[in-house]
Amino acid sequence: MSSVFGDRIKMTIFGESHGPAIGLVIDGLPAGVELDLNAIDREMARRAPGRNELSTARNEKDAYVIESGFFAGKTTGMPLCALIHNKDQHSKDYSILQNVMRPGHGDYAGRIKYAGFNDYRGGGSFSGRLTAPLVFMGAVAKQLLKVKGIIVGAHVASVGGVCDKNFNPLGERAEVLTGLAEKVFPVLEDTMGKTMIDTIMRAKQQKNSVGGTIECMAIGIPVGLGEPYFDSVESRLAHVLFSVPAVKAVEFGKGFALAAMLGSEANDPMYMVGSEVAAKTNNNGGVLGGITNGMPLVFKVGIKPTPSIALPQATVDFAKKSDTILEIKGRHDPCIVLRAVPVIEAVTAWTILDLLLAANRSL
Amino acid sequence: MSSVFGDRIKMTIFGESHGPAIGLVIDGLPAGVELDLNAIDREMARRAPGRNELSTARNEKDAYVIESGFFAGKTTGMPLCALIHNKDQHSKDYSILQNVMRPGHGDYAGRIKYAGFNDYRGGGSFSGRLTAPLVFMGAVAKQLLKVKGIIVGAHVASVGGVCDKNFNPLGERAEVLTGLAEKVFPVLEDTMGKTMIDTIMRAKQQKNSVGGTIECMAIGIPVGLGEPYFDSVESRLAHVLFSVPAVKAVEFGKGFALAAMLGSEANDPMYMVGSEVAAKTNNNGGVLGGITNGMPLVFKVGIKPTPSIALPQATVDFAKKSDTILEIKGRHDPCIVLRAVPVIEAVTAWTILDLLLAANRSL
Amino acid sequence: MSSVFGDRIKMTIFGESHGPAIGLVIDGLPAGVELDLNAIDREMARRAPGRNELSTARNEKDAYVIESGFFAGKTTGMPLCALIHNKDQHSKDYSILQNVMRPGHGDYAGRIKYAGFNDYRGGGSFSGRLTAPLVFMGAVAKQLLKVKGIIVGAHVASVGGVCDKNFNPLGERAEVLTGLAEKVFPVLEDTMGKTMIDTIMRAKQQKNSVGGTIECMAIGIPVGLGEPYFDSVESRLAHVLFSVPAVKAVEFGKGFALAAMLGSEANDPMYMVGSEVAAKTNNNGGVLGGITNGMPLVFKVGIKPTPSIALPQATVDFAKKSDTILEIKGRHDPCIVLRAVPVIEAVTAWTILDLLLAANRSL
Amino acid sequence: MSSVFGDRIKMTIFGESHGPAIGLVIDGLPAGVELDLNAIDREMARRAPGRNELSTARNEKDAYVIESGFFAGKTTGMPLCALIHNKDQHSKDYSILQNVMRPGHGDYAGRIKYAGFNDYRGGGSFSGRLTAPLVFMGAVAKQLLKVKGIIVGAHVASVGGVCDKNFNPLGERAEVLTGLAEKVFPVLEDTMGKTMIDTIMRAKQQKNSVGGTIECMAIGIPVGLGEPYFDSVESRLAHVLFSVPAVKAVEFGKGFALAAMLGSEANDPMYMVGSEVAAKTNNNGGVLGGITNGMPLVFKVGIKPTPSIALPQATVDFAKKSDTILEIKGRHDPCIVLRAVPVIEAVTAWTILDLLLAANRSL
Repeated sequence: MSSVFGDRIKMTIFGESHGPAIGLVIDGLPAGVELDLNAIDREMARRAPGRNELSTARNEKDAYVIESGFFAGKTTGMPLCALIHNKDQHSKDYSILQNVMRPGHGDYAGRIKYAGFNDYRGGGSFSGRLTAPLVFMGAVAKQLLKVKGIIVGAHVASVGGVCDKNFNPLGERAEVLTGLAEKVFPVLEDTMGKTMIDTIMRAKQQKNSVGGTIECMAIGIPVGLGEPYFDSVESRLAHVLFSVPAVKAVEFGKGFALAAMLGSEANDPMYMVGSEVAAKTNNNGGVLGGITNGMPLVFKVGIKPTPSIALPQATVDFAKKSDTILEIKGRHDPCIVLRAVPVIEAVTAWTILDLLLAANRSL
Repeated sequence: MSSVFGDRIKMTIFGESHGPAIGLVIDGLPAGVELDLNAIDREMARRAPGRNELSTARNEKDAYVIESGFFAGKTTGMPLCALIHNKDQHSKDYSILQNVMRPGHGDYAGRIKYAGFNDYRGGGSFSGRLTAPLVFMGAVAKQLLKVKGIIVGAHVASVGGVCDKNFNPLGERAEVLTGLAEKVFPVLEDTMGKTMIDTIMRAKQQKNSVGGTIECMAIGIPVGLGEPYFDSVESRLAHVLFSVPAVKAVEFGKGFALAAMLGSEANDPMYMVGSEVAAKTNNNGGVLGGITNGMPLVFKVGIKPTPSIALPQATVDFAKKSDTILEIKGRHDPCIVLRAVPVIEAVTAWTILDLLLAANRSL
Repeated sequence: MSSVFGDRIKMTIFGESHGPAIGLVIDGLPAGVELDLNAIDREMARRAPGRNELSTARNEKDAYVIESGFFAGKTTGMPLCALIHNKDQHSKDYSILQNVMRPGHGDYAGRIKYAGFNDYRGGGSFSGRLTAPLVFMGAVAKQLLKVKGIIVGAHVASVGGVCDKNFNPLGERAEVLTGLAEKVFPVLEDTMGKTMIDTIMRAKQQKNSVGGTIECMAIGIPVGLGEPYFDSVESRLAHVLFSVPAVKAVEFGKGFALAAMLGSEANDPMYMVGSEVAAKTNNNGGVLGGITNGMPLVFKVGIKPTPSIALPQATVDFAKKSDTILEIKGRHDPCIVLRAVPVIEAVTAWTILDLLLAANRSL
Repeated sequence: MSSVFGDRIKMTIFGESHGPAIGLVIDGLPAGVELDLNAIDREMARRAPGRNELSTARNEKDAYVIESGFFAGKTTGMPLCALIHNKDQHSKDYSILQNVMRPGHGDYAGRIKYAGFNDYRGGGSFSGRLTAPLVFMGAVAKQLLKVKGIIVGAHVASVGGVCDKNFNPLGERAEVLTGLAEKVFPVLEDTMGKTMIDTIMRAKQQKNSVGGTIECMAIGIPVGLGEPYFDSVESRLAHVLFSVPAVKAVEFGKGFALAAMLGSEANDPMYMVGSEVAAKTNNNGGVLGGITNGMPLVFKVGIKPTPSIALPQATVDFAKKSDTILEIKGRHDPCIVLRAVPVIEAVTAWTILDLLLAANRSL
């Protein structure tokens, strides 16, 4: 575990924010899959920093080099390693962080755990930069899922309390889901998006940051992915979703709202459509008994405000063993939610692909 | 994966609600651990059905037989298998369920996945009965954690929208956490508990059911458990929490509320207490960067209403390939939240124990 | 790991020789597989003790109870647990072994590892009794493999230096392989078997024991099972073969003899048979580059003499911290090779089934 | 599995012989380990090609770049990725191999398994080049083991039937084991080494190749590593040993010779040395019941002749669907045994380190 996860598609990620490179190794891809590198580039660009005033000024193209597992335009069936070299590090910005712990970050927990030997520059392996390999994996997974008619999409569901409307739990059209990826600010109601952007810019001007939520949907999923207990779709998805930095909450379907409902309201009634079974509502988010039931998979994640803020914060100095006040310099996202959207989609696509491969138990 | 999970403490669970037995195998327990069987009995009794009018009338003592790994009152270091024989099955209650799918249950997803061969009686392996092995594991884990000064406790945080007060995120006294296990209805404010019970009884009388939330806390946890990315404490805990039937939402610390906060509000400021580091708030629930930071671990799970209700529900009949109306007979919990409390504690204790063993990397 | 192994078919074994029961949990069986319980009984009987003067007098039928995963004569797709209750224990025979370490056994290593808490009676979990669950698994696997035209068989290749002839590496007829299972002493040349039996009986009369080798073959295996590196067929097979007590050597194809050959002798020349590819020799035992090449899988294991002998042996007494002489009482096999034959077949069948399921990577 | 293996120290390897790079990711190294890069270089040089007339003329320094997990001269506790760029590829030498299958290689099995999409140049991922990452891992492991007083060493035990003397199974001095690494041709008796070299050169002149055996020993190993059944020391070691290309046989202690012995000869008698337990012989190679018993770990592997030979060989042409004769061009080792010595040591060191970390079960 730790930096390796997955069952049929095992992924290993590595790297530190200011080290030479970050990257991933994907094990278990079928051989002969033609990869659309442009499509991967597009996904990488969605997450990359420095695109506009809403994100950090760190300017990284996140260009990757495929080192193995790819030959003559197709996967070889062998592990695919891709490397993303770190380019625009300003490591000196971080020298103070060797001893002064940033509140809301893993600095203190990591310093104790790794006895001070972890790379503190830019958060080291705790950095959100490590989500770039996840997006690469997701971009590959999406290409495989597309062939099976499975589409994954997500939108910013809220920022600082300003809410977009929700997906229709009975399913959105494929164009709606894929169209979100082309928006600078992916929301269903652009007027709400404008208000969210204002909220983010206000936080930025106040040297502060703001959190939000992301809603994700996958359509075209067959009945029968996942297993009861430890391979439930919710278990597997939540595992990787909570590996994404800043994610602090996950709910499927109506989620926490189900806790205040009656059984007669919460249960999704079923009916026949020709010889097919469908449900009239999708309060359970497409998963029952841990297994997909053919309804769209839909869930929401809660993302905390970027912990790095320029306002003065009370914290501790390990070298001096004393309290101190920290004003974080450097370049930071005033709201990480926007850049997290492709990451949430990516880990979702990876998980669905993995469950899909695992569900095939024919000899 | 599937029915096996864990890293240092691997657990395999098995069994079907109306089969001969359910059980578990625990792999990785240190040798020489004296087990307090009475303490295990007490935990099993907390989850067992038939204790009062708030739970199903199925009367199971959930008595277990230890088949291996336990000799002369202590663990042998070998896999410990415990079996719980099913006793009070009324299998005939379920014959209709071979073809008529219960809304809100895994019946339909399971029927398609397992091509109709899964044991439909009482939900088979989807049954909440499979949480009895989890409680056994948790009872063992709690005994090991206690020696290290780690205490896990949980309370019913809400039922049908009626809320208990929350734990103090800076920590509750050990007696508060352990005392909850002795209450018939474990809440912090008993007056609210009374209202919750009324809510449950009302749902029961109306042949309906109701959901709720559980808040869980662990104190005494050392700094440094878990890892960034795929072994984050949140990832590992969420994985097993979402394996518990009816759990549809999980949030750590302030969870979804963090999404509406500013960074300056959400970050937990740190200060020195002598030579120790502490935080003034615990909005992150004791986990930063995926790693425990020494603050109490605190999280909430959302549990949907019991899907089995006696009210008529629209669904499908697979044999007739037609719509139908189902009124579920049999014995069911009008609210599963109460019995889920020891289960949530159990999987939490298991996960902490596992992370604790994994964190020891000395040669 | 430890007591859990496998990829698509994960098996957990448990139990101690003189505890209440031994058993296994099989995770990953497809749903709807009709199990021929008589065929399982026959395999269990091949390994069971007490059948004749060549094996220990411990009289165990090794009757199993299926506790889960089996409903209406078919697998349910859920974990299948089978229990074998220990019956004919003579635990008092073993009381001396709490402190006096048997040479050639895991007693001393286990005592140190488990700090004296392991169940020393009859060797506890180190006992060959734990191979009964392996045979159960193998019997199930064989039924699944048979449908795919894959047959596994093994014979006693030597006892105490007396050798049977080898399998034809280009393949034996299915009847030869299955016919061996019906022989009391499974050899290809019965006259050599007679000499082997004499060798065993002589060792028995001399309160001694004797080792041997087993050759195993599987025919009908498709090209393409296994992977280069850590999932090579040889790696996966050797892993489980060396888990069988008393196995100390494994070689594939010509094995150690290849080390003395020239490349021109060792390489297996290929040719076309119609549109199919075949090889003129099978020195590599059906595996090249870690992957099956369509030739019969053939390998040999070396099994040491039963370490339990009635002759006086020099050893140590832990209680007295002194040297001592031990004469092992109780009932022991003068040669474990005979009873190991179905075990070797079993772990081979399990491994092939697992690799077969893993090789299917279609979405 | 597949390209990921290990329990506490998980290693992922990747790369193809003629792709941009090969490499590895090591997960689970403790933080703060100072790495002696010169020592790693020395190990890499032992395996690197082109050093003398006994090995292939492919001239690769096997220089590595550490991309992550290493900061300020020490491990960070995060995954360590090292990349080895391929330099001296002569890919055109291999164009014929797209369709003509080399006997003794994985070409045919791989072509079928990967449907022709695997990188055939130089054997792709089947290439012995993939053992370079293993040697890197071993070099790191050796540094950690050294601190615990554990030394691993190996020698060429035979080439083409010409045998070196064996290690003293009761243990060699550390200087003997480490001294072997400094020899150009690591044998215990240099006169035999001279004869082996002659044998290799003769095979080379005859456009042929020759196999051999390697004996490996580890001293200073504590009692108690490994587990009965699936984590037996033999199981874990054999798994990785058989992942090394060309290894076709593995035996522990006296190995196959035990099969011809009596129990009274094979058992290792024990005695007290002060308050310590020792054994008078070490026929079991330091492992009993799957667990280390404090005696030196000693085992032998059988390595087949390099399958690439320049002599004409009968094989098939896939494009023409016909028989053909192949004379392999390019640069090949006439005997791979010499370069395999550091690889065998490496996977042994890695496995011991992993078992050592796993054996620590204290909370």
